[in-house]
Amino acid sequence: MKRVSWSSLDASERVQALRRPAQQASADTRTAVATLIEEVRARGDVAVRELTERFDQVSMDALAVTDAECAAAATALTPALRDAIDEAAGRIEAFHREGMTREYAMDTAPGVRCERVLRPIARVGLYVPAGSAPLPSTALMLGVPARLAGCRDVVLCTPPRPDGSADPTVLYAAMRCGVRQVFKVGGVQAIAAMAFGTASVPKCDKLFGPGNGYVTEAKRQVSMVEGGAAIDMPAGPSEVLVIADAGANPAFVAADLLSQAEHGPDSQVLLLSDDAALIDAVAEQLERQLAMLSRAGVARRALESSRLIQVDTLQQAFDISNAYAPEHLILALRDARAWLSQVEAAGSVFLGDWAPEALGDYCSGTNHVLPTSGAARYVGGLNVASFQVAITVQEVSRDGIAAIGPCAVELATAEGLDAHRLAVALRLDEVAA
Amino acid sequence: MKRVSWSSLDASERVQALRRPAQQASADTRTAVATLIEEVRARGDVAVRELTERFDQVSMDALAVTDAECAAAATALTPALRDAIDEAAGRIEAFHREGMTREYAMDTAPGVRCERVLRPIARVGLYVPAGSAPLPSTALMLGVPARLAGCRDVVLCTPPRPDGSADPTVLYAAMRCGVRQVFKVGGVQAIAAMAFGTASVPKCDKLFGPGNGYVTEAKRQVSMVEGGAAIDMPAGPSEVLVIADAGANPAFVAADLLSQAEHGPDSQVLLLSDDAALIDAVAEQLERQLAMLSRAGVARRALESSRLIQVDTLQQAFDISNAYAPEHLILALRDARAWLSQVEAAGSVFLGDWAPEALGDYCSGTNHVLPTSGAARYVGGLNVASFQVAITVQEVSRDGIAAIGPCAVELATAEGLDAHRLAVALRLDEVAA
Repeated sequence: MKRVSWSSLDASERVQALRRPAQQASADTRTAVATLIEEVRARGDVAVRELTERFDQVSMDALAVTDAECAAAATALTPALRDAIDEAAGRIEAFHREGMTREYAMDTAPGVRCERVLRPIARVGLYVPAGSAPLPSTALMLGVPARLAGCRDVVLCTPPRPDGSADPTVLYAAMRCGVRQVFKVGGVQAIAAMAFGTASVPKCDKLFGPGNGYVTEAKRQVSMVEGGAAIDMPAGPSEVLVIADAGANPAFVAADLLSQAEHGPDSQVLLLSDDAALIDAVAEQLERQLAMLSRAGVARRALESSRLIQVDTLQQAFDISNAYAPEHLILALRDARAWLSQVEAAGSVFLGDWAPEALGDYCSGTNHVLPTSGAARYVGGLNVASFQVAITVQEVSRDGIAAIGPCAVELATAEGLDAHRLAVALRLDEVAA
Repeated sequence: MKRVSWSSLDASERVQALRRPAQQASADTRTAVATLIEEVRARGDVAVRELTERFDQVSMDALAVTDAECAAAATALTPALRDAIDEAAGRIEAFHREGMTREYAMDTAPGVRCERVLRPIARVGLYVPAGSAPLPSTALMLGVPARLAGCRDVVLCTPPRPDGSADPTVLYAAMRCGVRQVFKVGGVQAIAAMAFGTASVPKCDKLFGPGNGYVTEAKRQVSMVEGGAAIDMPAGPSEVLVIADAGANPAFVAADLLSQAEHGPDSQVLLLSDDAALIDAVAEQLERQLAMLSRAGVARRALESSRLIQVDTLQQAFDISNAYAPEHLILALRDARAWLSQVEAAGSVFLGDWAPEALGDYCSGTNHVLPTSGAARYVGGLNVASFQVAITVQEVSRDGIAAIGPCAVELATAEGLDAHRLAVALRLDEVAA
């Protein structure tokens, strides 16, 4: 892991130190993904089955998970795992429910009632990857807010296992969220099927969830096409930035860095500290803990493009962090709470020594689908509002238009929009008559 | 305007009847826009000045509007127009303030405090077009929520007039919203300048506002590029759908259809009614009112791709409207309020005979930047949250991790993520010790 001292870097070295690994799909990937999407769009389930055979090495008959499979999933899990899923779902639901957008109404003038009403997005598609391992936590993070929003059709796609079944942990988590339409389809074919619909898979208005580079590129492409689907947010590799002071626990900090690094070789982890000894100790701990990890190879590759950065002051660390806008920000500081006000852009923040990022991934209650690649500068993580549309409403009486109509006439005149003016003026005439 | 009876249409004719005019930019447009963006990105202000000379036929020295120009703008307006802008700004501010997202905090378990905090997007860019006419109302619709959000840098670009000045109405509206950085730059060059920054124009994190096809394509392109800027929402031509019953006022309905049609030749307006006589009367009123409009040519072209649709029942009209997901939905119904619950997807809804869509454009208080092209199925209009990021926070004590740590360990184990498990387990060991 490269170690640098921020003050010793010139401007271009600083840019370089915070540069994320290149993320845009290659031209080859783009073309390949476009071809796959077109196949699914043109030939529906037939293409989905062919691609599943090609990429998942399994020949599928029915793509939909049956009720019997769902029932069997619950019994396949240990009670401890079922309890853990239930417990996590409960806290995620509590936190998300409390943050729900509210409807409201107010009179902006006598006789002019303006409102915001909320509606669930009718048809949503959730993607739960299962590349290196199944991700029941992702099913919860997508399924809980979809249920709170009240979406009518909630579709979930997850890759089949070699025997053609779906992972029971993912199924159990999906059921826990009330998801009834689960399909054993993965990768680009899943995204295309949900975006355009097939005989089996319903067409969805908006797609959610993480995935590998192909899935991410597929989501990008279907969101660009007329008749495609919207997507939750621009996705990129996972990342964490830790700001630690001299009092931080080096083993904890190293563990937090590694838990991000193990996500993938393109994950990026950054440590910023004003204490050289702490950085030394973390570097030592990284090596020690790497030896204990099953995914050490992946983590080691991620660490190659990561940085240990020594700063002069903690304020400097916050300036760097705000410029970088990390997905996860851990404040391993003695007075983390007081420093929170300095955070301008981050997906989710973890305060103090006892808040590892892994808690947010699973069960603190916050969502783990968060903005990556610096998108935290302009967008927040997934929440119930991501599954809803807000509609504004105005109800106007005769008194109402008499009160505000002249204002509209004046502005329409200034903008040279005759018909706008006329639509108001006709009514004002009628009210005056 | 084409007139159809919904029941007499087969499935493909129904699709055709609701088809929007093609909206994706041509390959030529895309290439042209990409070239212009690249010029601005590479050569900054020099390119902006050249393009301004080419497209706006004016040679600009300073691009920034001076304080003196702002001061002069206020006095250039009639008192009535100043008052109208102030009045509209007041109601827009009141409605948007009431709908602001709130911060919240809760304990999801003993010792686990989860929160949502809000931060303004630091640097936002507002685009206010001035093609056929200046649009001070757009300056209000963008500037008011940006101010409420507390954005640090609010940049506004608007095309220069032939004499090199900015429209005083737009300037006055911008000042009313506290916007201090106004640039006389329009079109693709404005979008590129705000996305990438030039010596004069600050680089922005997110761009807002409507524009012609070139501006829309430029926004799309800069939002796709690493190092570019986010954008408010997918933009398309304006549209209105009116559902009217036998009791509706045909002159009002026709005026509302025309006030959308005059926006541009690609605007789309739809009337749905269960009453043939009302449709006849509206058709007659359309012809009569067209004769009174300065922009009759534009409106007439828009009407060519628009429809008068006779439905069997009002419920059928709502089914059609929900499938279409119009930007503006006018319910010219005797019991409009009761029908609101049937609306699943629309940008903004206008209830009853006295709520012309023009009121929403200017001064009811709601925002007029709304989802077009069916995007109302998955996104709402502009609001203060569009200018903010929500950050989740978790603060965990020793008791907190003792309470929820085992749940995270169980799930990390199920997902095969060792380092995640370890980050929690190390702390649990320490707590237990």
